[in-house]
Amino acid sequence: MSDAPKKVVLAYSGGLDTSIILKWLQTEYNCEVVTFTADLGQGEELEPARQKAELLGIKPEDIHIEDLREEFVRDFVFPMFRANAVYEGEYLLGTSIARPLISKRLVEIAKATGADAVAHGATGKGNDQVRFELSAYALDPSIKVIAPWREWDLTSRTKLIEFAEQNQIPIAKDKRGEAPFSVDANLLHTSSEGKALENPAEEAPDYVYQRTVSPEDAPNTPEYIEVTFERGDAVAINGEAMSPATILTKLNELGGKHGIGRLDFVENRFVGMKSRGIYETPGGTVLLAAHRGIEQITLDSGAGHLKDSLMPRYAELIYNGFWFSPEREMLQALIDKSQEHVTGTVRLKLYKGSVNTVGRWSDHSLYSEKHVTFEDDAGAYDQKDAAGFIKLNALRLKLIGNRNAKFK
Amino acid sequence: MSDAPKKVVLAYSGGLDTSIILKWLQTEYNCEVVTFTADLGQGEELEPARQKAELLGIKPEDIHIEDLREEFVRDFVFPMFRANAVYEGEYLLGTSIARPLISKRLVEIAKATGADAVAHGATGKGNDQVRFELSAYALDPSIKVIAPWREWDLTSRTKLIEFAEQNQIPIAKDKRGEAPFSVDANLLHTSSEGKALENPAEEAPDYVYQRTVSPEDAPNTPEYIEVTFERGDAVAINGEAMSPATILTKLNELGGKHGIGRLDFVENRFVGMKSRGIYETPGGTVLLAAHRGIEQITLDSGAGHLKDSLMPRYAELIYNGFWFSPEREMLQALIDKSQEHVTGTVRLKLYKGSVNTVGRWSDHSLYSEKHVTFEDDAGAYDQKDAAGFIKLNALRLKLIGNRNAKFK
Amino acid sequence: MSDAPKKVVLAYSGGLDTSIILKWLQTEYNCEVVTFTADLGQGEELEPARQKAELLGIKPEDIHIEDLREEFVRDFVFPMFRANAVYEGEYLLGTSIARPLISKRLVEIAKATGADAVAHGATGKGNDQVRFELSAYALDPSIKVIAPWREWDLTSRTKLIEFAEQNQIPIAKDKRGEAPFSVDANLLHTSSEGKALENPAEEAPDYVYQRTVSPEDAPNTPEYIEVTFERGDAVAINGEAMSPATILTKLNELGGKHGIGRLDFVENRFVGMKSRGIYETPGGTVLLAAHRGIEQITLDSGAGHLKDSLMPRYAELIYNGFWFSPEREMLQALIDKSQEHVTGTVRLKLYKGSVNTVGRWSDHSLYSEKHVTFEDDAGAYDQKDAAGFIKLNALRLKLIGNRNAKFK
Amino acid sequence: MSDAPKKVVLAYSGGLDTSIILKWLQTEYNCEVVTFTADLGQGEELEPARQKAELLGIKPEDIHIEDLREEFVRDFVFPMFRANAVYEGEYLLGTSIARPLISKRLVEIAKATGADAVAHGATGKGNDQVRFELSAYALDPSIKVIAPWREWDLTSRTKLIEFAEQNQIPIAKDKRGEAPFSVDANLLHTSSEGKALENPAEEAPDYVYQRTVSPEDAPNTPEYIEVTFERGDAVAINGEAMSPATILTKLNELGGKHGIGRLDFVENRFVGMKSRGIYETPGGTVLLAAHRGIEQITLDSGAGHLKDSLMPRYAELIYNGFWFSPEREMLQALIDKSQEHVTGTVRLKLYKGSVNTVGRWSDHSLYSEKHVTFEDDAGAYDQKDAAGFIKLNALRLKLIGNRNAKFK
Repeated sequence: MSDAPKKVVLAYSGGLDTSIILKWLQTEYNCEVVTFTADLGQGEELEPARQKAELLGIKPEDIHIEDLREEFVRDFVFPMFRANAVYEGEYLLGTSIARPLISKRLVEIAKATGADAVAHGATGKGNDQVRFELSAYALDPSIKVIAPWREWDLTSRTKLIEFAEQNQIPIAKDKRGEAPFSVDANLLHTSSEGKALENPAEEAPDYVYQRTVSPEDAPNTPEYIEVTFERGDAVAINGEAMSPATILTKLNELGGKHGIGRLDFVENRFVGMKSRGIYETPGGTVLLAAHRGIEQITLDSGAGHLKDSLMPRYAELIYNGFWFSPEREMLQALIDKSQEHVTGTVRLKLYKGSVNTVGRWSDHSLYSEKHVTFEDDAGAYDQKDAAGFIKLNALRLKLIGNRNAKFK
Repeated sequence: MSDAPKKVVLAYSGGLDTSIILKWLQTEYNCEVVTFTADLGQGEELEPARQKAELLGIKPEDIHIEDLREEFVRDFVFPMFRANAVYEGEYLLGTSIARPLISKRLVEIAKATGADAVAHGATGKGNDQVRFELSAYALDPSIKVIAPWREWDLTSRTKLIEFAEQNQIPIAKDKRGEAPFSVDANLLHTSSEGKALENPAEEAPDYVYQRTVSPEDAPNTPEYIEVTFERGDAVAINGEAMSPATILTKLNELGGKHGIGRLDFVENRFVGMKSRGIYETPGGTVLLAAHRGIEQITLDSGAGHLKDSLMPRYAELIYNGFWFSPEREMLQALIDKSQEHVTGTVRLKLYKGSVNTVGRWSDHSLYSEKHVTFEDDAGAYDQKDAAGFIKLNALRLKLIGNRNAKFK
Repeated sequence: MSDAPKKVVLAYSGGLDTSIILKWLQTEYNCEVVTFTADLGQGEELEPARQKAELLGIKPEDIHIEDLREEFVRDFVFPMFRANAVYEGEYLLGTSIARPLISKRLVEIAKATGADAVAHGATGKGNDQVRFELSAYALDPSIKVIAPWREWDLTSRTKLIEFAEQNQIPIAKDKRGEAPFSVDANLLHTSSEGKALENPAEEAPDYVYQRTVSPEDAPNTPEYIEVTFERGDAVAINGEAMSPATILTKLNELGGKHGIGRLDFVENRFVGMKSRGIYETPGGTVLLAAHRGIEQITLDSGAGHLKDSLMPRYAELIYNGFWFSPEREMLQALIDKSQEHVTGTVRLKLYKGSVNTVGRWSDHSLYSEKHVTFEDDAGAYDQKDAAGFIKLNALRLKLIGNRNAKFK
Repeated sequence: MSDAPKKVVLAYSGGLDTSIILKWLQTEYNCEVVTFTADLGQGEELEPARQKAELLGIKPEDIHIEDLREEFVRDFVFPMFRANAVYEGEYLLGTSIARPLISKRLVEIAKATGADAVAHGATGKGNDQVRFELSAYALDPSIKVIAPWREWDLTSRTKLIEFAEQNQIPIAKDKRGEAPFSVDANLLHTSSEGKALENPAEEAPDYVYQRTVSPEDAPNTPEYIEVTFERGDAVAINGEAMSPATILTKLNELGGKHGIGRLDFVENRFVGMKSRGIYETPGGTVLLAAHRGIEQITLDSGAGHLKDSLMPRYAELIYNGFWFSPEREMLQALIDKSQEHVTGTVRLKLYKGSVNTVGRWSDHSLYSEKHVTFEDDAGAYDQKDAAGFIKLNALRLKLIGNRNAKFK
């Protein structure tokens, strides 16, 4: 088949499923496989992935392992948080935002290694396949994308295990049986879904949660922290400057300790069905509250309301996999423009599952005590101006009122 | 002055400030005054207002006292919650939504009593003057609106007290001095702002909060409740059917007990300045979570995303006082249309300041376990369809990628 | 094959292509075929379709021929024109709006005749397949849709002719060769695309145009007409009341005679590619101008601007085939709400390709000469109100100006 | 009065009205007056304004006359046309876009000359006062703005003439009487409104039009032109490179000659009333058609639809005077981002009032004949992909259809 890939870069975790894919690619397409394993903060050692890849016959120079945490937070997570992006009112897009970066590196490594295809381990029912592939096609329109889950006939756990055994793929003891649910993790969040969680009427059992304590088990005393922003991005916690990934790591610790950022959610997938997910986004939840807090005093209503009205569309684009699209880039230009003065510090209270802004200050603040004060404002504001303001805002309503009265 | 009002309907609370206004209207304009006092769930006895009005010379037939709680929740709060309306990402519009109803009754009473004007006690710096007046003008374009705070020269506490004393207005002992902040309350929320709260960098002291316990003082054990919706409106709690106002009252008790619904917020007023408010919306916060929870399974993405994208505009209209405007009514028609199947029950966990959806079910659910399942789906969904779906979604991105590559 | 259709309702024009489809369905699936031929104002006799269907072996009771012109204009075209819908700034959606009605009748006839499938003659590259199928699936989720152009191997003109000959399908002489472009027509428009028109740099030759004269050939004298609206829909021309389809027919005559409504356009198809079309929408172009004209005086800015901002999304939904979707219905509710007072008359000048509004009047008019006049307005408007209006609108800009000045 | 201005920069046309204002400022406020007269392409000699200012006692160094045509087109008109901005569906914003530039120069000259105030000749009923003042306050929050028409008692033509006579202001013969309507002009357009035009039911008489011939009087032969764009801005006509102002001047000639760009319009003013205007925008109308034409092939649907959906808001901001606001700048950043590849050439046909795109080509084109062709596409597009695309787009509609069927 002329369309068959000759050399494939595989997004490889080192786990059983992507090991099976690796082998399947070799046997199905008789092609060379290059592995790519990224540290996005999922909290797993990466070196075992190298050993496993070698064991499966990948040449050392074809094994790529990279720490992408700083790039992930700096170029993907932070730009997204400038928009206060939440999908369908609640989901902080932890999985969605990681996929474009992985695709970007897959395509770059393909270019560097002369590969003509990339492959991923996402199924044909979810959003991730879309995110991986749209990103890959946008960055290299000639690339081939292989999605084994949509192609092969290994459609049951039994068949997968069988294939693994036939191909000498080592199987960890706890992987023989079915996992009770499926997990994705990176520096921004952990998501769990499927199987035991498929009934949205039933509360998720506590053992599902992996990086946050239960609010009931969180400390009985609130903790106060201060987050400092520059031009829309967090740059310091409690006055200590940190790199983007370090900040998110630290906020994860703080949020996780206080049981912050758990979400039990039913969402609409791009492919047309609803799914139920359990998300833990401890640091992101704190970061969102903090960012909103600093915007409260540094953005005016014109900028803020415009951002708010476009946020759902921006979030939908990221959720649906259109990070590398003209419209996402256009919205980003708009959002970034708004952040020029989003600089200052927010004080937050963390307590048993909640994060609340309790103070905010900034040299760039637009809050004017002189204007708002109940006390004497020394002429900063002439209350009589409000009469004219209301009169002209009311004019069209009066004309409508008079018109409509004629037809009652 | 030909423009002077002859008979004025005053929004009268019975408190010192509106009593001063009552007297001032009588003396300044030599006009008849009709008082209107509404129970919107602010938690105060209304009969003292009657006595005070009589004391100030208002004829019994000119004193109007009404319990508007059911109308308030049914015709204003619930329609607004169908939209999941929050202003600037966080504020539940508790004050904003009450004003149009008060204006509506002011204008109706004016018509019934032959009055040519209405009056309110809102200052010239805030949003409430706008909300009162836009509503009044929309409902009766010929009405006069008198806003004494924008007109008179009683511009200090001292002058107000002096005027009260000169006019035999009784002054409660605790009203002689300046209140440390200003409060507004109704069945949906309590807001506090001004004076002691004017520095947005400083945490609000705990004594500001009036209808919620501190999360730290809330019960150590979570409480689970179930809220049932029909066509977008809450109709029962824990299986017990209740009237709209009863439901909100009950949710307030539950939310308040668990420290839910506190918000420390800096917002953009319509009149152009920023202000800081402390809001307590215990029942509303629970209701919003519940409504979002039931929409998760009963609204599809097309309906939900359209609603989401218009919500900021809808909320802004209410905040700015445009309840009685064609555009709010158009948006309401759109929102109400979306709620035809928003029927079902949500299970919520209340605990120390947080409310979380933990389960939801409905005969109207669009969630299809058959489609989403990780298990065998018996052909409900063909994963190969996803390949074509992605290919066509990618087509324009590929064309762009090829084009852009030419110009690098 | 268990999935094979047993009885199919085919959208049948009587032309060569759908006759081939008819035969192909019979032979490929060995299924019963029911034909459906609709008069949507395409300007062709329908009875020949009946004869041809009979000739191809369809039983008389399985041949459905219907005049849908009134339903088409009343329930599809007019609701769409209430929104002033144009796709990508220019296209009046003439093809898009006809497809949902055809699908609706296909599905209804399937139900009535016990058919389990419907079939259409749209290709796999265009938008029409999407429109037909989304509508059909929305109205009957269990229906099968057969799109022969995506399935069969009759992929060249030669093969099609061969198949026709083998199956005794009569071939008109002029259909043996390739048509120079492809045409779709209904009461709203005629579109031409493909082949001779595929180079968007080259002007379309004049022989492409079928229902409008060239502006150069139009009368040398302008013609004035008056169109009267009630609640957003045209109800009379020059004072003469007419049914919806009659109005559109009459406007087509008028517009066509004056060379109005030609459009040479490159658009973005939903399936991801660009295409070039030549559209003729004479009556629709006049109707759009007239509707905008009457809205100018009967809609206020709040209603008008909200409509304007949502129109692109509404138009995109129709273009993409989502007529029967919750979000289109929600938008329709919003739009229809806005039209309650869109009643009155517009005077238009038609001349050599242009239609211009030159006058409009209505009992529902919001235009107030009293307010706008340069002459003495007798106190209708106090110019001093504008000072306060501007001051408060400027307040946030001043605060921004002061802030930004600090950081220059 | 401490608030009284000491030195005022007046937007001075040299005409009777602004001469009266000049004198009135001197007498009312006893302040120094600096005049500013700009050539924005209104087609009037500016030197008479200098002589007249001198005659009225302005010192030569306080008379500022500037040719701003290039800045006007380059920094205001062209950025606006990148957005395809039209207000309320039709108005090309010719007056609106000029005001911010005038205010910018007024404020800059105030700074340079040590003036503490600026003054303009716009009335209290229109939009221009808002546009002048919002711009001035945004650029210099401490500036005072004087709007004599809102302040003085020269409220009739008689009083104005009287004041002029008393103050030795020369009055041209034709200015003694009332002009039949009011005119504003610049390089982008001429607008006429008021008095004779105040009845929106009556067609405007032909003598109102000043820079376009009547379509009936335009040449009987069409003229074809080509406009070339680079990154969204017109840079050449018929292959000849020109400066921004030269291009617009040339397009005005071409459009005016062919009777293009006349608009009879009723619009909603920001101050709440409707007004009727007659606009002539010959070059702008051609430019808009051309810009849309080039975007047809160089913008993809994602970028184009996003722009389209935000255009009404962008246009409203400019109309309402918010050019110098964060939200306009944010939208501009988004729009400018979209224009990076809007480069190429459009061929247009001009004929008796109409401008039509008849061809467009570009190295940056996204139009792919290979994909769209009705002919064999050599595998560029697999029609079977469309089946999956439609299936997944239909999935939610099917789920809704099944759900809704349960409740019928």
